[in-house]
Amino acid sequence: MSELQPRSTRCHDILGCSGEGVVRIAYNTRRHREEFQIVSSSTASATSVNRVFNFNAGPSALPLSVLERIREELLDWRGSGMSVMEMSHRSPEFESINAAAETGLRKHLAIPDDYAVIFLQGGGSTQFTLAPMNLCLPGKPVDLLHTGTWTAKALTELKKGIAHRIAATTEPVKFTRVPRKDEISLSPDASYVHLCTNNTIEGTQYHAIPETAEVPIVADMSSDIASRPFDVKKFGLIFAGAQKNLGPSGVTLVIVRKDLAERADKNLPTIFQYRTHIKEKSLYHTPPTFAIYIVGLMTEWIESHGGLAGIQKRNETKAKLLYDTIDSSNGFYHCPVEKDSRSLMNVVFRVAGINGQSAATNPDEASEKEFGKQAAAAGLVGTPGHRSVGGMRVSLYNAVEPAAVEALTSFMRDFQRKRG
Amino acid sequence: MSELQPRSTRCHDILGCSGEGVVRIAYNTRRHREEFQIVSSSTASATSVNRVFNFNAGPSALPLSVLERIREELLDWRGSGMSVMEMSHRSPEFESINAAAETGLRKHLAIPDDYAVIFLQGGGSTQFTLAPMNLCLPGKPVDLLHTGTWTAKALTELKKGIAHRIAATTEPVKFTRVPRKDEISLSPDASYVHLCTNNTIEGTQYHAIPETAEVPIVADMSSDIASRPFDVKKFGLIFAGAQKNLGPSGVTLVIVRKDLAERADKNLPTIFQYRTHIKEKSLYHTPPTFAIYIVGLMTEWIESHGGLAGIQKRNETKAKLLYDTIDSSNGFYHCPVEKDSRSLMNVVFRVAGINGQSAATNPDEASEKEFGKQAAAAGLVGTPGHRSVGGMRVSLYNAVEPAAVEALTSFMRDFQRKRG
Repeated sequence: MSELQPRSTRCHDILGCSGEGVVRIAYNTRRHREEFQIVSSSTASATSVNRVFNFNAGPSALPLSVLERIREELLDWRGSGMSVMEMSHRSPEFESINAAAETGLRKHLAIPDDYAVIFLQGGGSTQFTLAPMNLCLPGKPVDLLHTGTWTAKALTELKKGIAHRIAATTEPVKFTRVPRKDEISLSPDASYVHLCTNNTIEGTQYHAIPETAEVPIVADMSSDIASRPFDVKKFGLIFAGAQKNLGPSGVTLVIVRKDLAERADKNLPTIFQYRTHIKEKSLYHTPPTFAIYIVGLMTEWIESHGGLAGIQKRNETKAKLLYDTIDSSNGFYHCPVEKDSRSLMNVVFRVAGINGQSAATNPDEASEKEFGKQAAAAGLVGTPGHRSVGGMRVSLYNAVEPAAVEALTSFMRDFQRKRG
Repeated sequence: MSELQPRSTRCHDILGCSGEGVVRIAYNTRRHREEFQIVSSSTASATSVNRVFNFNAGPSALPLSVLERIREELLDWRGSGMSVMEMSHRSPEFESINAAAETGLRKHLAIPDDYAVIFLQGGGSTQFTLAPMNLCLPGKPVDLLHTGTWTAKALTELKKGIAHRIAATTEPVKFTRVPRKDEISLSPDASYVHLCTNNTIEGTQYHAIPETAEVPIVADMSSDIASRPFDVKKFGLIFAGAQKNLGPSGVTLVIVRKDLAERADKNLPTIFQYRTHIKEKSLYHTPPTFAIYIVGLMTEWIESHGGLAGIQKRNETKAKLLYDTIDSSNGFYHCPVEKDSRSLMNVVFRVAGINGQSAATNPDEASEKEFGKQAAAAGLVGTPGHRSVGGMRVSLYNAVEPAAVEALTSFMRDFQRKRG
């Protein structure tokens, strides 16, 4: 039985490209926890905090530099004499915060002018309901590409009286990949095609968006929004809870082609019409002001990492390290997802037992439970898979540092040495 | 022309009853701004922040002690190694936060066991839509007590195909009071009675809830929830955005009698059924975790002020000081609301011009504009009335300190001396 080895103390900048922050990481084998000593040039004194490596599936890790900024501005936002939480949503101060979040997203996601950017509440589950209410045309079905838990939820809502077809499903292969081009059978007259770009629970992701000709795509992008550059023009409507890549929970980003928002019956409840929020720039009613402020800070953080191209590179590096560790484990770890559908955001894998059998054929729940427990004790939090599917799931959203994945893969090799 | 007089420096505890905080308030006539020097026993060093007096109508002031607590816990919530914003909503840590918020509300609002307490998103405007979807019985109308802007919004949604009656309206008297008992004509078979307990824009408030026999009341309590003790049993459903008295925007408190939630058609969209959120204890989908955490902190703050009885006393004292200042101004200030309908939360008034005429008969918009401008320059923020009605509006929600009202009334007397 080996022990976690002490790592050499080193410096690593995790405060963006500003060079403001210095983090000293020292493994402490007794406490099995990362200890961060933060020295920020923006505060006069050193602050010591104990932060874990956070692989939660959402809500999830936020950049330390963003949290520090929030903390610094919490009692007095830039001389306003109040917290962002205390501002009227009709004040010039908050209007500037709201506009900055939209502007940052438009810039980094390259959102064209004929698309609206609005901040709503209620997450993806609300959007499953609002999208058909707003975008369905009489007699024209919704085509669904069924790839797992979240499209199943969308399907449940469509079954409540909305014409729809399953245009593709990977359920027969247990959702271990997204559909291939030749498996997708679209209706010629669909109102829209619904798909989920990244399947958080199944660990799959589209690496090419299906072609749908003139039929607009409604994309649940909750778990991979802003993780890589993408062409907004391929979509009619994009929605995403902020709590994976863009901020805290409580705000839902909706990007919608303006002409599609005009499909809605004006007799729909006012609050359920996209056009209401487009017209009022997300200020029809009181928005989740503090969450929108943090989305704006996240766009600045994306900027400091070279925009989405830089973020993509960083995410690819993190995912490669983890998948390589799994694939080179001689079957001790096994990722059930087909290689060309593997998610860069959520890495799912199974763990073998101590009996020498392969995780592919004989995953061991006791071993997986022990993995999650020992990982948490070592300050590597959030590795157990979704309660509905078991196994392990490691989420590598934007704010997860490469150093976190290095620590995790180091732990994984060690765990294997002890048990494999 | 007199100037604002320097006030003597004094100590005033605004950090609850814990005695932890000391605030030194010094008027600076040149800067016209309150300056707070905060010494908290929970931090090693003194921190200086510049905070205004905040009379915003919502989002609105939060207690400084609550903001400080948020700040202290922002990078590492009680040894968890992460911010509340970064926690999985399925984690034991967040479940304890969610439960604490509910428990605190149940205790201080004396919510009986046959009522559910749930945290939703979308504010009052969403509840106008969800309440009829969930609570309407076939052929039984909604009775509406129409008292201003917010009941007008509810009415707009009812007009989209929901049977309803206006059971009382004070529109003929320009909403300067709530309806009297003998003006309310209820249907014997209504699904429910909709009313707004406090009218934020008109500055009116019910000081006795109308009797409706067996017909449940749906109450929009957004702007006076938790401002005074009240009997939950008089209501069928209560909803309130947190952003006035209970926290930041982005979370909506719903208190609903459990049997009423069972009226809803199970074919309604899942996310729009109250029963979904009751069954899942607000965790059906990702809730606005950080906002719920702050609601929990607010219940602790209410506790530290003697519960709702203590809060009520404090609110009455603040409102009395302001109304007395208006009423004793010899007509320079005028509150158009009838005395027995006056809101303790939102005090509306008009201001006279420099021509010696009365604000009751000749309110002066130029003078009101000047009032708002000079008040803001003196660190008294948020006094202009709602853009739809003009005049002044001062919101005195729970977190507004008595010292803020003292500063405001001092300013008001001074403003009058200069112009009256």
